[in-house]
Amino acid sequence: MKILVANLGSTSFKYRLFDMTDERILARGGVERIGSAQSKCFVEVGGQREEWTLEAKDHAVAVRLCLTQLTDKKCLSSPKELAAIGFKAVHAKGLTGVHRVDKHVLTAMEAYNDILPAHNPPYVTAMRLLAKELPEIPLVAAFETGFHETIPPAQKHYAIPREWADSIGIKRWGFHGASHRFIAERATMLIGNPDAKIVSCHLGGSSSLCAIKAGKSQATSMGMTPQSGLPQNNRVGDFDPFALLELMRTTGKSLGELLDILANKSGLEGLSGKSNDLRDVEIAALAGDANSKLALDVYVASVRQYLGSYLLLLGGADAIVFTGGIGENSATMREAICQDLGWFGIHLDGDKNKSAKGETRIEAANSRVQLWIMPTNEELIVARQTAGAI
Amino acid sequence: MKILVANLGSTSFKYRLFDMTDERILARGGVERIGSAQSKCFVEVGGQREEWTLEAKDHAVAVRLCLTQLTDKKCLSSPKELAAIGFKAVHAKGLTGVHRVDKHVLTAMEAYNDILPAHNPPYVTAMRLLAKELPEIPLVAAFETGFHETIPPAQKHYAIPREWADSIGIKRWGFHGASHRFIAERATMLIGNPDAKIVSCHLGGSSSLCAIKAGKSQATSMGMTPQSGLPQNNRVGDFDPFALLELMRTTGKSLGELLDILANKSGLEGLSGKSNDLRDVEIAALAGDANSKLALDVYVASVRQYLGSYLLLLGGADAIVFTGGIGENSATMREAICQDLGWFGIHLDGDKNKSAKGETRIEAANSRVQLWIMPTNEELIVARQTAGAI
Repeated sequence: MKILVANLGSTSFKYRLFDMTDERILARGGVERIGSAQSKCFVEVGGQREEWTLEAKDHAVAVRLCLTQLTDKKCLSSPKELAAIGFKAVHAKGLTGVHRVDKHVLTAMEAYNDILPAHNPPYVTAMRLLAKELPEIPLVAAFETGFHETIPPAQKHYAIPREWADSIGIKRWGFHGASHRFIAERATMLIGNPDAKIVSCHLGGSSSLCAIKAGKSQATSMGMTPQSGLPQNNRVGDFDPFALLELMRTTGKSLGELLDILANKSGLEGLSGKSNDLRDVEIAALAGDANSKLALDVYVASVRQYLGSYLLLLGGADAIVFTGGIGENSATMREAICQDLGWFGIHLDGDKNKSAKGETRIEAANSRVQLWIMPTNEELIVARQTAGAI
Repeated sequence: MKILVANLGSTSFKYRLFDMTDERILARGGVERIGSAQSKCFVEVGGQREEWTLEAKDHAVAVRLCLTQLTDKKCLSSPKELAAIGFKAVHAKGLTGVHRVDKHVLTAMEAYNDILPAHNPPYVTAMRLLAKELPEIPLVAAFETGFHETIPPAQKHYAIPREWADSIGIKRWGFHGASHRFIAERATMLIGNPDAKIVSCHLGGSSSLCAIKAGKSQATSMGMTPQSGLPQNNRVGDFDPFALLELMRTTGKSLGELLDILANKSGLEGLSGKSNDLRDVEIAALAGDANSKLALDVYVASVRQYLGSYLLLLGGADAIVFTGGIGENSATMREAICQDLGWFGIHLDGDKNKSAKGETRIEAANSRVQLWIMPTNEELIVARQTAGAI
């Protein structure tokens, strides 16, 4: 069975093609600048990359184009061999888990357009077009909230009127489900204990921590929306809603304008005033920029806040896992996060941390908790979920 | 020097009179139902309590009445002997620490009337009247935020545009300062180590945790307003502001109406649907009420979330201290909070916990962290601060 896992932007379509018999990636590719006369198209098979420019007026044209290329490259015997396209979808009203995309799913996603402004609108538009133009290909949405269905009520509920949770769905849903699920499965297997306790730290442009026990999510840092939890590249993270009153009065801005700033001009970008990319902020901090230093300190403090919470929630941990762009690549962030944990018996090996590449352990010999760097593989999780849903 | 520490409600005035030479309480008393023809007045000196009913049309009349009684009882040689009245004030715009009450202070408090609806309006009204009617008595406001001035920037800042913190004051200010300051001083002294690391758990109708090192606040659970942090009796605690969009759309309520529900009909009351008093919620949960059980579970999970954070922040702790109405009196809550901390070397002694009365230690012999019950004394802190400000 061959599954294409798609990553959509408002003017882009990127994919990985999986052969599910051995979960191998047969090809990756995509189209950028969809809608322009000069759309950029690429395909990569067996390490060979080809690029060219042509016109792809919409996402349906782009997908058809990619299927033709994959057939030309013998990755598919014909476009019909494709069993389904899977999407890592974020959140929809009243839905979680894995679903064939139909009107109901699209309406449920659309209902959260305003609380997920960066995620849902481009997905809904593109999925609707693909469903109409390529009806022969099943589309599957694997929602990021799915992995967190196992979070117990004590962690899932806000202290709000009970009916708001039950009838409106105001709960801590949690996100980054595909990544935390991959880490849960892989780390549990590598530790060799099916009941292993793991703190998964997905740190990147968007970041969250997840407490995992026996492969199941017990708590995660993002709540009702991906705007809460850790500070993100340009999103606020945890924030006191009552501060909005003072902000509205003082700035004269509307609630919508303020939430827009909190969702697009806050996080590392808002604090540093420099960049929404941690690498740039690290460079500026090293050069002595005080606001950039503060942005890093706030980020690290927030990661440590959730790390401490989850160590206590789990009653200790077998492993702490770093993944995501920052988690896999920033030795300085990992070092800052693991600083002074000796009281807990947690010890980073500074040299291993600095020289680490790929999946590897970086704790010192006397550490009672394993420290891992582990590249995540969200697409593989979505491919498996898609295969299971058709 | 004799200092009266006042606790104001919109129709009540309660006080303790301190002799600051030995910090002894000379008397306590107050007036309730101020404004009615049947105001209830009481005074307690040397364990003897007297009560009577009379007319006190406003807070100034009530205070004068109390001063006359205190003079009659020989606690004061004359009303003029009173050096000052101190108030445990909550928060004011652009102000923290201890201040003589003047127009500037009153205006600053008034500016936060809407984000502190339960606290500031009655204080501002009563203080303004007292300043006018009793100009001979210095009034001092000791703001709860003062103890938290030592919180480092990494914990103090939200990930918002930097200017919102600097020019509008949107930061994690923290509250319950008098209580956490008392615990910091007393616990540090009892532990016998000036650098002691302490997690102070003030659990009551209103609750917060504070991480303390060398007597200084390092982090606390309440943020910009006392509506954030742990769930309270009827207040929400931490909440995702982006959920407000979905709530506005679904319920048809305005932002103001929703924040009112979050500030007055949420917390234990909202979750349980039974009561805003933890004792009632505990009874209902024991009788099998599922929503009351959930309310307790959410409360305990939130306390444990901050407890884990602060253990990590401090790099371990010498003591965890329970104070406040719940912290001092609920053995079941203390037990639930301390459950399964063996990985951290923290062990509660179940029997000591159940039979505990007053200031006492309740950890097991093999615990590497002291566990204390410690009655707080916010009024003594305010009396000291008031004495120091005049």
